[in-house]
Amino acid sequence: MQLKITEPTLLLDKTKVMPNIEKMLTKSRQNQLVFRPHFKTHQSIEIASWYKDLGVSKCTVSSLKMAQYFAENGWIDITVAFPTNILEMDKIQRLASSINLNLLVESVDVVDILAKELKDSVSIFIKIDAGYNRTGIKAENSIAIRQLVHHIKQYSNLEFEGLLIHDGHTYAARGKEEIRSIYNTTLGKINKLRENLVEELADATISLGDTPTFSVIDIFEGFHEMRPGNFVFYDLMQWQIGSCSLKEIAVCMACPIVAKHNERDTLIIYGGSVHFSKDRIIIDGKNVFGLLVKLTETGWQFFEKSYYLTSVSQEHGILEGDSEMLNQFSIGDLVGIIPVHSCLTADLMKSYQTIDGKIISRL
Amino acid sequence: MQLKITEPTLLLDKTKVMPNIEKMLTKSRQNQLVFRPHFKTHQSIEIASWYKDLGVSKCTVSSLKMAQYFAENGWIDITVAFPTNILEMDKIQRLASSINLNLLVESVDVVDILAKELKDSVSIFIKIDAGYNRTGIKAENSIAIRQLVHHIKQYSNLEFEGLLIHDGHTYAARGKEEIRSIYNTTLGKINKLRENLVEELADATISLGDTPTFSVIDIFEGFHEMRPGNFVFYDLMQWQIGSCSLKEIAVCMACPIVAKHNERDTLIIYGGSVHFSKDRIIIDGKNVFGLLVKLTETGWQFFEKSYYLTSVSQEHGILEGDSEMLNQFSIGDLVGIIPVHSCLTADLMKSYQTIDGKIISRL
Repeated sequence: MQLKITEPTLLLDKTKVMPNIEKMLTKSRQNQLVFRPHFKTHQSIEIASWYKDLGVSKCTVSSLKMAQYFAENGWIDITVAFPTNILEMDKIQRLASSINLNLLVESVDVVDILAKELKDSVSIFIKIDAGYNRTGIKAENSIAIRQLVHHIKQYSNLEFEGLLIHDGHTYAARGKEEIRSIYNTTLGKINKLRENLVEELADATISLGDTPTFSVIDIFEGFHEMRPGNFVFYDLMQWQIGSCSLKEIAVCMACPIVAKHNERDTLIIYGGSVHFSKDRIIIDGKNVFGLLVKLTETGWQFFEKSYYLTSVSQEHGILEGDSEMLNQFSIGDLVGIIPVHSCLTADLMKSYQTIDGKIISRL
Repeated sequence: MQLKITEPTLLLDKTKVMPNIEKMLTKSRQNQLVFRPHFKTHQSIEIASWYKDLGVSKCTVSSLKMAQYFAENGWIDITVAFPTNILEMDKIQRLASSINLNLLVESVDVVDILAKELKDSVSIFIKIDAGYNRTGIKAENSIAIRQLVHHIKQYSNLEFEGLLIHDGHTYAARGKEEIRSIYNTTLGKINKLRENLVEELADATISLGDTPTFSVIDIFEGFHEMRPGNFVFYDLMQWQIGSCSLKEIAVCMACPIVAKHNERDTLIIYGGSVHFSKDRIIIDGKNVFGLLVKLTETGWQFFEKSYYLTSVSQEHGILEGDSEMLNQFSIGDLVGIIPVHSCLTADLMKSYQTIDGKIISRL
């Protein structure tokens, strides 16, 4: 790598990003699904423009601040996939007056407040919990869902758009069969809802999220919209889940080696929890915060053996390996580390550096 | 609280910060220790000025970027308590030319490079590992330490300053006895080193870090300098370790409630891993990311029962409780959450809001 890097830096390989986007876009077309990618992973106007170049015009975000950022930069159809925060009514009103804004609700109280406060109309998704157990109305509770649909429909400034599901429990899955099982359970619950609420859901958009599901499942029936986000970069966690191969991961941290401990078989890097985050996966019973790769002229390559970042404190990281690993590196060299959770690493790093040295900013 | 807060916000109570600083300053004076607080927790010129008002003129940081920030704002005696990153030689040279810069080394290679590259002189601490097992030369290895001292002393632009220890393994301790035991072990190792290296360490500064040790131990013998940092705010982790009481914790997140689940006894807040970090402690076998408190006109108060933030995803947090907890809150209310690790929460939040509404920026 010819780049002059002296501090922890988040590298982005566009030649990996584009096939990730194209594959997901193809899947959306094959299944006649609206493609509304989640932009919370990259949070970058420039990366968003790569989607736009391929014809994508709708997106998902997870805060009103993100919605504002993308709205100010030409995105005019945005879903905020987060329970509406009524304390930010000013932002909601401003967005409602300028773009096609889709909000998420799960209670009559919030519907009433939106209806009362908003001068412009917004579209409303009801947040459905199909098993993740974080938030939303349980998919089994068709009575509450019917009630909320009717409640929304009585207001002229609220347009009932449909149901929104995020199966975040796929993140705990390992392998295609587990993900398929979660998907089938969700599909079963949604079909049951449709039977119970024939009239209410006649024109409803059923929107499904999450990268594991849309990476692993090929045929979708009964859904209208897909909102995966992380797939744009993928990461070590998605690899462990079974969503991607290591080669599809499009981001990599470059970190300086600052100490070398031959007697402990460790390298100490400048790169810690304020760069990687403290998210971790478990491999062979050990905490893992990243995977060592070799930086090259054109990006990065995988070692035959797997060496992991096994500990991070605020600025320090510890790479555990063996003499073979240590012999390849000196103090002052850069190592590449594939992060465990690219959403959080990118959030901390605040910008990307492409392989050819261009800086890409983000919100 | 009269403040208009609509998004996750990090509150800072100066009336708690000042006693935390004063107590540590008093301890340094009683023990005739140089007080060189670590500024990586707050990373704020304004908070640094509160130390300066009390007569503190030396500080510790954990990156050259932080050193630059404080040097540009009037701090002229700074230790970078991180193994010297030789890739940032330009920054080191600039700092060396303008302030009293103390660097950390643990190998002859880095010493040689510094001696060769630097036009101005710097002071050098040798990083000693007294049991934390992250980085540094093992305290038992007096041969390597002697060799490195002699190696440093041969160069005219490097001044051997002393030994620097950070007993980070106190973070795994629970209660005063465990911390005292770690301290005594370290003291024993340092005394042994002094016996072995009488001449080399004759004028050496022995510098010790870490908040648990300096919160719990009252009498220090054999050390010359103290570098705790987190104590300025403390947090739930330090409370669990036994370093502080809950009332001494000086920062608190304010987060909007966005959903309420009576049937699951949970509140969903706007406040997730991009605000709190994913650092956690375990209480009663459960992951804990924060403790619920009640926001008041003058700060925050503790509930009789303990309710915890038990899950965080990117922007969502889940507070687990009971009907008593739920009955006190409505959607759109703000809750207070004491964070588990204030260093990482402050790093993510990027600024503080004082109880009377003033915004304090940071690096």
